[in-house]
Amino acid sequence: MDEREARLQLSCVVEAGDAAMAEQIALHGPEKVWAAVFRGRDRDTGAARRARQLDLDVVLRIAKVTNARFIIPGDDEWPEGLDVLAVTSPWQGMGGLPIGLWVRGPKHLGELCARSVAIVGARAATSYGKDVATDFAAELSQSGVTIVSGGAYGIDDAAHKGALAVSGPTVAVLARGCDDVYPVGNAAMLGWVVQREAMVSEVPLGQAPTRFRFLSRNRLIAAMTQATIIVEAAARSGARNTATWATLCGRPLMAVPGPVHAATSVTPHRLIRDHEAELVATVADIHDVLAPLGQSPLPIVDRGADREVDALSGDDLAVFEAVPGRGGLSAGEVSLGAGVPIAKTLSCLERLLEAGWVQVTHAGLWRIARVPR
Amino acid sequence: MDEREARLQLSCVVEAGDAAMAEQIALHGPEKVWAAVFRGRDRDTGAARRARQLDLDVVLRIAKVTNARFIIPGDDEWPEGLDVLAVTSPWQGMGGLPIGLWVRGPKHLGELCARSVAIVGARAATSYGKDVATDFAAELSQSGVTIVSGGAYGIDDAAHKGALAVSGPTVAVLARGCDDVYPVGNAAMLGWVVQREAMVSEVPLGQAPTRFRFLSRNRLIAAMTQATIIVEAAARSGARNTATWATLCGRPLMAVPGPVHAATSVTPHRLIRDHEAELVATVADIHDVLAPLGQSPLPIVDRGADREVDALSGDDLAVFEAVPGRGGLSAGEVSLGAGVPIAKTLSCLERLLEAGWVQVTHAGLWRIARVPR
Repeated sequence: MDEREARLQLSCVVEAGDAAMAEQIALHGPEKVWAAVFRGRDRDTGAARRARQLDLDVVLRIAKVTNARFIIPGDDEWPEGLDVLAVTSPWQGMGGLPIGLWVRGPKHLGELCARSVAIVGARAATSYGKDVATDFAAELSQSGVTIVSGGAYGIDDAAHKGALAVSGPTVAVLARGCDDVYPVGNAAMLGWVVQREAMVSEVPLGQAPTRFRFLSRNRLIAAMTQATIIVEAAARSGARNTATWATLCGRPLMAVPGPVHAATSVTPHRLIRDHEAELVATVADIHDVLAPLGQSPLPIVDRGADREVDALSGDDLAVFEAVPGRGGLSAGEVSLGAGVPIAKTLSCLERLLEAGWVQVTHAGLWRIARVPR
Repeated sequence: MDEREARLQLSCVVEAGDAAMAEQIALHGPEKVWAAVFRGRDRDTGAARRARQLDLDVVLRIAKVTNARFIIPGDDEWPEGLDVLAVTSPWQGMGGLPIGLWVRGPKHLGELCARSVAIVGARAATSYGKDVATDFAAELSQSGVTIVSGGAYGIDDAAHKGALAVSGPTVAVLARGCDDVYPVGNAAMLGWVVQREAMVSEVPLGQAPTRFRFLSRNRLIAAMTQATIIVEAAARSGARNTATWATLCGRPLMAVPGPVHAATSVTPHRLIRDHEAELVATVADIHDVLAPLGQSPLPIVDRGADREVDALSGDDLAVFEAVPGRGGLSAGEVSLGAGVPIAKTLSCLERLLEAGWVQVTHAGLWRIARVPR
């Protein structure tokens, strides 16, 4: 059995976004983990039960009917941004690289995501929020930025439609098997996405969404894009979770302001107030965040391979690892992330700056130096 | 002739907010400067011409009729916050401590300003902006915070009315002589302010506003309050100037978001986006800025007297002087303000932190240490 088959079967029996399983797969490889799950399929665990019930023929038949393809890490079509999940801390047991992804639609998912932003927000959006989502999505996608969203009612729907309206690129990332184009109210829009763009899900074909699947889906949206924009979200909203994932993944987070009395603007205002998100009121503001100082959007920063991080040690290493590859954090935020006192953090940052490891923005935010040393 | 008489006459002949004259007065004292102006009253300058035309009896008669009092620096009623103007850099020739202030109304101006915020914004405000200004002003003034504004149409009017509606404290700072309660549309509101609160102006009694007087009036609003809140302001707006003065005076600046399509929210959104202002969507947000970490509002920070700044030198001194007394700046902003490179600034900040001169907020912003060393 090769890696692809092992991942295909694992993806059918392991809950999407199960961080512990993702770690096992990273440590031992999918073949060994699948062999272990298969050997233990008489046990009384969820994975074992699903392994007993697994009928791969049914899965492959649905794939054929719906013209869905299964892609795995390392595939040409695999969105490069997802790889950050291999090194991102889990959140409430969720996390890790997806085992594989089901994709439908004519476009190349990796190319779509190479220059992309997530636009997400409330299902119960206002017409103000939906207008903003549609306008921003249309204008951004016309300039070649792919609009990634969750295919839900409200802001998601408005964002996808903004891109579709101008024949711009868009990707719907579902929390259910992507054989189906539910919810019914969005079926037409999702149908267009499948016909013209790309729809993707980590959840096996034929399966329904769960709360866990919505939350672990949010990590994909945050990781596969270069930045996340929250348009409207009430105090308790799934979009707040996507914002958390964007920050965990080191992606810039933006939020759209609105009237202060609107319940749907509570989360964007809080994110901006607490300096978790940048305020964006125009598409020009978004481009500024994506490409500070007029530069083109940043390439994915490789935090490992071609950087001699081994040359760093102790607090320098801890501080360096707390500095994001994109966006930027204040020295205080780096200090919190590194667990190194602020005064110490400042001297580490100074050393790292002088040695060319990190850079500091005009606004005093720190990130990993763009140009290799 | 005593200082009060000298200041009274100077205030009638020197343009309000003339930074060069304020500096002369600070250097030589008002008596000597008035004597020099009076000696040179045959010359062809604005001050000389006004000195020739000055009829002090008329001024004093208007004062008597309108029950206006003239207060000078050092008076018990003098708002302590204004003293920051003695050390704030001029802006386009404007600046400096006012020579004196005309005050009307039953309340003690110094006590009113001791716990106060400015709420300012567009004359051509929307009903959304006016509602927010009224609501915030009412709620803040009910908790004992004085609402200071410019007595103009729109946001200013709404802010004063919010305070008046709950019998809360408010101060109108005019760009014209405060004998008059123009503009006509605001006459009723300004009449209530005079009857119940305090109205104040640096401009001589009987005189009309000019563009220069509006701009130099804005510095009084920013300086005499603990913080400034911009509710609505278009791209080019007088409120933008008040925001600049608040920053020059080291006062925290706040801005209220609104719909992204509203022209009246362009300036608040820019100020928040550029991290010049904190986003405030609720009165609780405002209290958080006024009193970070649940403490009561900060006392005026004395940057000179009882701090041994003489102990600092070179870059340490430049960096220390760029650190604000309230609010906070990122290390990058301090670096820009001090004209010291960022790496150097960071090591200075670290030294200043360890020596207890400065403190760093949870968000990594720097300000002068609250507790004396």
